[in-house]
Amino acid sequence: VVSFFYVSERNHEYAIIFMMKVSKLGEFGLIDLLAKMIAEAKVDRLAADQPLIGIGDDAAAWRTDGSIELATVDTMVQDVHFSLNATTWQELGWKSLAINLSDIAAMGGMPEYALVALALPEDTAVTDITDLYEGMIELAKQSRTAIVGGNISRAQVVSVTITVIGKSINQIILRRAAARPGDLIAVTGHPGSAAAGLEMLSKNLKFKSPVAEYLRSAFLHPVPRLVEGQLLIIQGIKTAIDTSDGLLSDLRHICEASKVSARIDVDRLPVHPAVRESFGENARGLALSGGEDYELLFTGPADAINRVKAEIKCPVTTIGEITAGAPGKIELFDASGKVIIITKTGWQHF
Amino acid sequence: VVSFFYVSERNHEYAIIFMMKVSKLGEFGLIDLLAKMIAEAKVDRLAADQPLIGIGDDAAAWRTDGSIELATVDTMVQDVHFSLNATTWQELGWKSLAINLSDIAAMGGMPEYALVALALPEDTAVTDITDLYEGMIELAKQSRTAIVGGNISRAQVVSVTITVIGKSINQIILRRAAARPGDLIAVTGHPGSAAAGLEMLSKNLKFKSPVAEYLRSAFLHPVPRLVEGQLLIIQGIKTAIDTSDGLLSDLRHICEASKVSARIDVDRLPVHPAVRESFGENARGLALSGGEDYELLFTGPADAINRVKAEIKCPVTTIGEITAGAPGKIELFDASGKVIIITKTGWQHF
Repeated sequence: VVSFFYVSERNHEYAIIFMMKVSKLGEFGLIDLLAKMIAEAKVDRLAADQPLIGIGDDAAAWRTDGSIELATVDTMVQDVHFSLNATTWQELGWKSLAINLSDIAAMGGMPEYALVALALPEDTAVTDITDLYEGMIELAKQSRTAIVGGNISRAQVVSVTITVIGKSINQIILRRAAARPGDLIAVTGHPGSAAAGLEMLSKNLKFKSPVAEYLRSAFLHPVPRLVEGQLLIIQGIKTAIDTSDGLLSDLRHICEASKVSARIDVDRLPVHPAVRESFGENARGLALSGGEDYELLFTGPADAINRVKAEIKCPVTTIGEITAGAPGKIELFDASGKVIIITKTGWQHF
Repeated sequence: VVSFFYVSERNHEYAIIFMMKVSKLGEFGLIDLLAKMIAEAKVDRLAADQPLIGIGDDAAAWRTDGSIELATVDTMVQDVHFSLNATTWQELGWKSLAINLSDIAAMGGMPEYALVALALPEDTAVTDITDLYEGMIELAKQSRTAIVGGNISRAQVVSVTITVIGKSINQIILRRAAARPGDLIAVTGHPGSAAAGLEMLSKNLKFKSPVAEYLRSAFLHPVPRLVEGQLLIIQGIKTAIDTSDGLLSDLRHICEASKVSARIDVDRLPVHPAVRESFGENARGLALSGGEDYELLFTGPADAINRVKAEIKCPVTTIGEITAGAPGKIELFDASGKVIIITKTGWQHF
């Protein structure tokens, strides 16, 4: 079985890029371009304690006297990342913190401090903001994250930008760039559930009570895999990412950073029964490409993966393996060994 | 001479506050309310290394093994904090970082790392964003701040949220809450210059070349007083704030946090000749109430202030003194000792 599926390909002709709109270049293209500017200006190397990893992992990391420090930032913008019609203020507070804690989890770290930058229209009700903080405080308590500061600005729409500062355990961090050919690929939880929840909310689909609640919670109440990330380190895993952009997209990030290829057995994807039941044919597509699950996608030798499965409390499923090949290339195949390609209109066997 | 001038007064009847709009409660009222929620939930005390100071100083601070760590976040929102008609992308990049470095300066700290969260409309030109980074990188180099990460989101308007993480020198930080009756009050630079620059740009006023350039630069190219903040600590100063909200408003923050009153001699305000020349009668008002100067306002015993004046390279002017009295009360008087009160329509002698 030989085939290939490039999730996307980018072209770094800068003369052309500079005239482009941001939409054309895309988020990752823009990050690459800015990371290159920063590297050329050596402006990532100015502090006394120099960063351990370049821009482009889940969190920034640098070594201090006693440990490795981590820092990450993420933003939720109204009508881009959430709609106030579909999301309660408590859910917004929870999720805004959760997506940042998930980046710390993807490094195998412990969160310590959070700074909260709110941008709010002037006619926002004060009670909405205290509700937002209630949701945030609930998760802060569970994860032992101290909320130590922030900022409030006026703006046309609501946005919540949270910075989380954390620490590594055992002076080790999980990275994107450590996958090796022969590693197995595993994922926690049930990828695609958050995207199914978004589909339900945005298209106002009606499902029975336990299904609807599972889907809503998967999208609006993700639980960052902090304990799991730390357990990965203890069991000898070196490579991980959190699935914020979608399984394939995040796997591509690992493959590009590690300069390897990957093979995924789509029949092994651990689609949740509630998603399979509600979305049928489309469930697999949601699991491969749907974003915002905030699960951990990780790679490692079979024995390390088996130790993780024995020790971890959440579902862990092996879904494929890392191979030698073009950096970022991902092959999909099914249980019978048939290669699968993705087209704009759906899935088909090759 | 006995008189008083309350810059503002707040009422913490929470039942009423919850029904309010954010605009009614105001930024500082909302920060107080959220800080109280956080304190009650003890969610500022969850990390192993507990914060040294509560929410409400210029930056968050906590003690680690070898030093005190500092972190601060601030946002610039299009059409709220800047207009792309009046501001170049380089200036926006510079200022977005400068306002955060100024918070580190106000604690007497050294910046170390910056995380940049950008929110951008899809039709933003890539070259605009590289220009933004050029301005930011220029200041990062000057201040030895490593840009180590960030995030890019889609949004309706441009916003730039930067988090800066830093360290104290000598394990000491400047605070708002350390002013004592008898301290003199001093300020660096020329307060009111940034507000004069904003007036010029927003009202499209025309001034001669060196004046216009000074005013533009004061508003769009503030230079954070990092070296000066560190020098304050070395000379024994304990109390400082940066003037982001305006001299009187920021002095009130010190007085409230320190539970003291203050007297200001308005005839000693170091108004810049360019501002006096261009704004005449209004220059004093700009110096007292105009925001965004990002100068250091500090208090201390006369001998410490004199040592600062001898050592520091920028202008430092003594403008008043800290007195015992109602927390946050500020009296204004002129060189002849006459008390001055501020009304909505301007200044008048009492």
